[in-house]
Amino acid sequence: MAATLEGNACIGQSGGPTVVINQSLVGAVEEARKHKPIKKILGAVHGTLGIMAEDFKDLTRTGRKTLDAVADSLSAALGSCRHHPDEDDCAAILDVLRKPDVRYYFYIGGDDSAKSTAIIAGMARRAGYAMRCVHIPKTIDNNLVGSDHTPGFGSAARFVASAVRGDDLDNRSIPGVKVDVIMGRDAGWLTAASVLARRRDGDGPHLIYLPEVPFAITRFLNDVREVVREHGRAVIAVSEGIRDSGGTLWAKKLAESSDADVAGDAFGHFQLSGTGALADYLTMRIKDGLSSLNVTRVRGDTFGYLQRSFPGFASPVDQREAREVGRDAVRYACRGKDGSVAIKRKKTKTYASYTELIALGRVAGKNREVPKKFISTGGNDIRPSFVDYCLPLTGGIPETESLV
Amino acid sequence: MAATLEGNACIGQSGGPTVVINQSLVGAVEEARKHKPIKKILGAVHGTLGIMAEDFKDLTRTGRKTLDAVADSLSAALGSCRHHPDEDDCAAILDVLRKPDVRYYFYIGGDDSAKSTAIIAGMARRAGYAMRCVHIPKTIDNNLVGSDHTPGFGSAARFVASAVRGDDLDNRSIPGVKVDVIMGRDAGWLTAASVLARRRDGDGPHLIYLPEVPFAITRFLNDVREVVREHGRAVIAVSEGIRDSGGTLWAKKLAESSDADVAGDAFGHFQLSGTGALADYLTMRIKDGLSSLNVTRVRGDTFGYLQRSFPGFASPVDQREAREVGRDAVRYACRGKDGSVAIKRKKTKTYASYTELIALGRVAGKNREVPKKFISTGGNDIRPSFVDYCLPLTGGIPETESLV
Repeated sequence: MAATLEGNACIGQSGGPTVVINQSLVGAVEEARKHKPIKKILGAVHGTLGIMAEDFKDLTRTGRKTLDAVADSLSAALGSCRHHPDEDDCAAILDVLRKPDVRYYFYIGGDDSAKSTAIIAGMARRAGYAMRCVHIPKTIDNNLVGSDHTPGFGSAARFVASAVRGDDLDNRSIPGVKVDVIMGRDAGWLTAASVLARRRDGDGPHLIYLPEVPFAITRFLNDVREVVREHGRAVIAVSEGIRDSGGTLWAKKLAESSDADVAGDAFGHFQLSGTGALADYLTMRIKDGLSSLNVTRVRGDTFGYLQRSFPGFASPVDQREAREVGRDAVRYACRGKDGSVAIKRKKTKTYASYTELIALGRVAGKNREVPKKFISTGGNDIRPSFVDYCLPLTGGIPETESLV
Repeated sequence: MAATLEGNACIGQSGGPTVVINQSLVGAVEEARKHKPIKKILGAVHGTLGIMAEDFKDLTRTGRKTLDAVADSLSAALGSCRHHPDEDDCAAILDVLRKPDVRYYFYIGGDDSAKSTAIIAGMARRAGYAMRCVHIPKTIDNNLVGSDHTPGFGSAARFVASAVRGDDLDNRSIPGVKVDVIMGRDAGWLTAASVLARRRDGDGPHLIYLPEVPFAITRFLNDVREVVREHGRAVIAVSEGIRDSGGTLWAKKLAESSDADVAGDAFGHFQLSGTGALADYLTMRIKDGLSSLNVTRVRGDTFGYLQRSFPGFASPVDQREAREVGRDAVRYACRGKDGSVAIKRKKTKTYASYTELIALGRVAGKNREVPKKFISTGGNDIRPSFVDYCLPLTGGIPETESLV
């Protein structure tokens, strides 16, 4: 019955782009073409904003060459948005979708996208309008509940681990203290991936701080002091989402405080990404707090948008899986199901994965933190079991060698 | 006569590492092994600092496998240093080199390294101590006089152009104003390379600012305003080395001024790399200055150390040439010559290069700016002729595609 639901499909992309979000788009498009009940395939330009503005790009006959080029390209090829549609917006979206007889709705994004998809699905159901709604997962933050991992994370983890490996070798050649601030507001998965940079004794990152563990400056300075005493240098991975013991983001504290003890001076408007304020603050505190250690080079880098947008460096595993969740979304919808596609890991020796469709409500607006089992007792390091979890998702990190 | 100079060789690495500096090290080592008059090959650990401390690593018999792995690895495998030896230091260095009968001295670095090599060569000559001294070029800054380009630049340019291409696509998908601060204190070559990211009309970077053109905030804000009006967004490449009309670095102004008009508030100690202060300052000025334009997303990234240390992304052309300047340095020395190896470009249709040995004094302590012919009349863009110059050095930039 459900398989015979005839009509058009609409697909959109939302939130921060990744280097593989277009794989999911193309996977869904190519699978949709195989299913006869699906007639037209409409691409929403800039996600739900585009739907509300009735701005669609017809992908029904987009050429193979273009699709292949799009799949291999980073960023959201249809345009993305930072739009969190409320109930009224969702009602408007449903109205727009009904006009061109959209019966298959696919939305690629994170937990917020699952949320709007869930609202739209509920409204369609209550209105008696048959429309399959499937959320296609995407986030470098790896924080979707119900998934082993999310498309986009493996490539971002590959970038971060490679960047920290390079940075650690650079720091080994000219010793100093280096702070690298890594994306991830609500969960430390990507910061944890920096541990993949470590290969031999003495390699950085020597310290790793996640949002999951309250961050205190005194403790931090003690940690750095110990590492510098032991190695004569320190490479430190810090999540942009670190919080104090009260749960307040340090980035927010810096932006709002004029207390010299906290921020020296006002560090500008509150903003998590696209600013070097947190790294600059931490390096300032290290310079002031560890002056007795005679460390002359203290530097901070904020990896910034490159983590989600650097081209030509995607994880092949991530690319393949992102394509597959797009295809599977269409397959699930054509079997008459609503839900969110989740990647699961097979219990095999060699890495392998499959997908499941889980309830939209399980993912919508939820956050999955890095579990305690992956975090060291001291809260400033990541355990080796995380490497087993994460490394296969990256497709591997470039090898390096040093003589000293 | 000169070819029969028998003795040992010493080689060191200096200054900011690159992703191909080890190619030059390995090139020199493998070539030195072919020349019978050269007996032992001593690697100076952390450059001239290591020599003064008599800290050497014997590379005479280092295995092929290790050499291959080192050549492919970023950073200075022997360790580097930020050491500018004065006359006394150079005298001490010569004393140390004479002890193990070093007759071939190779030093890989930028214009400062050419300078110390020139001083040591002069001292050896005056002391009647026969020692061939050859400077092997290395700098991502591309600012050595007498060279068409320098080893390290092509790979850094590849990273920067790829990063800006990715960033521009990201910005296209979620429009806003983005400032990317790029390395290069005294010359804008690397910032200019961001222009390679542009493929079609409307692509960023929309504005490019080099140290070679005085930077004024009012003018900058007008430029940004125009671009935002035309494209609804703006991606802007800014050199960390931008200066005001008096020649003072903006980074220095920010660090030293407490004038709210200049820096809002103190932006910490003066430091060019390893801080996000300049990007944060420029985004703050854009937010304040262009509030009427209704641009809500204004972000800044500082590409930082990744530009010189990101693994697995080197330019194949750069790798090959870096290897070759190492080999040629030994060949020149074995022909009895002192000097600095310079890469020259053949006047062929397809890109090809060769090396020449030029006088150490021509390179030592000198800076080569981006010539005016490559800079647009308005001083805020780079001309297409620069693409012809730069693109072959990068080995190409990843392709991308978008539907909107």
